[in-house]
Amino acid sequence: MRTDPFAEADLTRDAMLGRRVHVFQPREGYRAGTDPVLLAAAVAVTPGQAVLELGCGAAPALCCLGVRVPGLRLAGLELQPGYAALARRNLSENGLTGDIWEGDLAAPPAAMRAERFDAVIANPPYFEARRRVPASDTAREVARAGETPLETWVATASRRLKPRGFATFIQRAERLPELLAALDRHLGAPELWPLLPREGRAPRLILARARKEGRAEFRFHAPAVIHAFDSHESCGNRYTDRFEGVFRRGEPLIFPAKLR
Amino acid sequence: MRTDPFAEADLTRDAMLGRRVHVFQPREGYRAGTDPVLLAAAVAVTPGQAVLELGCGAAPALCCLGVRVPGLRLAGLELQPGYAALARRNLSENGLTGDIWEGDLAAPPAAMRAERFDAVIANPPYFEARRRVPASDTAREVARAGETPLETWVATASRRLKPRGFATFIQRAERLPELLAALDRHLGAPELWPLLPREGRAPRLILARARKEGRAEFRFHAPAVIHAFDSHESCGNRYTDRFEGVFRRGEPLIFPAKLR
Repeated sequence: MRTDPFAEADLTRDAMLGRRVHVFQPREGYRAGTDPVLLAAAVAVTPGQAVLELGCGAAPALCCLGVRVPGLRLAGLELQPGYAALARRNLSENGLTGDIWEGDLAAPPAAMRAERFDAVIANPPYFEARRRVPASDTAREVARAGETPLETWVATASRRLKPRGFATFIQRAERLPELLAALDRHLGAPELWPLLPREGRAPRLILARARKEGRAEFRFHAPAVIHAFDSHESCGNRYTDRFEGVFRRGEPLIFPAKLR
Repeated sequence: MRTDPFAEADLTRDAMLGRRVHVFQPREGYRAGTDPVLLAAAVAVTPGQAVLELGCGAAPALCCLGVRVPGLRLAGLELQPGYAALARRNLSENGLTGDIWEGDLAAPPAAMRAERFDAVIANPPYFEARRRVPASDTAREVARAGETPLETWVATASRRLKPRGFATFIQRAERLPELLAALDRHLGAPELWPLLPREGRAPRLILARARKEGRAEFRFHAPAVIHAFDSHESCGNRYTDRFEGVFRRGEPLIFPAKLR
């Protein structure tokens, strides 16, 4: 738990979206990788709508989203005061405004409970403890490890969504069963979009979203491929065109409209 | 429900696995497509082991599996006596022996309940009624439509498996949430292997398996691609090399050993 503010010397200032966004992050501890950039790119919102991020950390996702879609109402919930302070600073540094509340997902502050959002997003933290218990014990095991079960993230998202609003999550592929079960329980019209690091590889990350009061059946989208094999350079790490657009030009990552 | 035997004139004799297998099927009604061939190819068994298929129909999967792996103990459960009779005939026509029991999944015959298997396989039927209810009502809706819920298929498979035995299912991608939830509840170490009709497309079918008493975490395998784009012929329907082996040469479809 990070309660005190970070010292300036402990921070780095990192560019994202081809230098359209800059975020201060602690040099050690949880640092945003590509996950919040992908999450922010995958949120389907239009100017004027309201977005809440659960567990926003230093708010890289809110910054990327706010810069891509101007005029959003931005809000974030963060458990650790040190990160919440950084989140406020990062919004401001990127010319954005919003509310960053401090508090626990399971018992959010009154100001958050008073508001409904068009979209709720989250990148729940994932502790890679090698599980030694049957899959059905997932929730209990996670709770024992001090982690909030995905079910709580989804239930909180559902309560804060307006009718027809979307909750969008990015998560490790290993947690798909737990995430799908929670989406099925608290929301409707679940969609799964696996992200393959390269063509022919297993997904490391999944994007999943579901809709408040949605009634459509489950959709399993065509996997999206992040990196291209570079024929000229055997160890190249080139993005595919779609992800080059997302990471370097701040373009959206639009969920497929229907099955192909 | 098909209780009386099919008339000879109502049957076709179809070749599978590059003419290694021939099965009689009704000209109308449920006809095996590629699904049972894929299911049979994906079962990891060795000569001498025992395999049970739930809802075996005319037993195309058991025939393909029995021909690929010699010396298996083959058994099938089928609700409709007309299909069960056809299943017995098809085993015999392909030089195989086995037991085909008539009965309901939810209350299987004593002979089936007396035996444990190294592998249980199933391709549960799927009625494509467009759902008009929230996702959480899946099981109830399915029951109303007269269909056995996936949960019953998985629970029955689990009861008939030896410890460490695998249950392998092939199913429409739309039913992933229901299938994963059932695997999580009744078995362990679930694995998902999406089958893409072509590179870059959404999966239509998924292979999923789980292990009795398995404790490994969920694994989401690299999607397998069934058809190749044919550069010489725009409307070609060529299989990729792996599936050419499965469909034309009776080769196994081996679940990835680990994540890549």
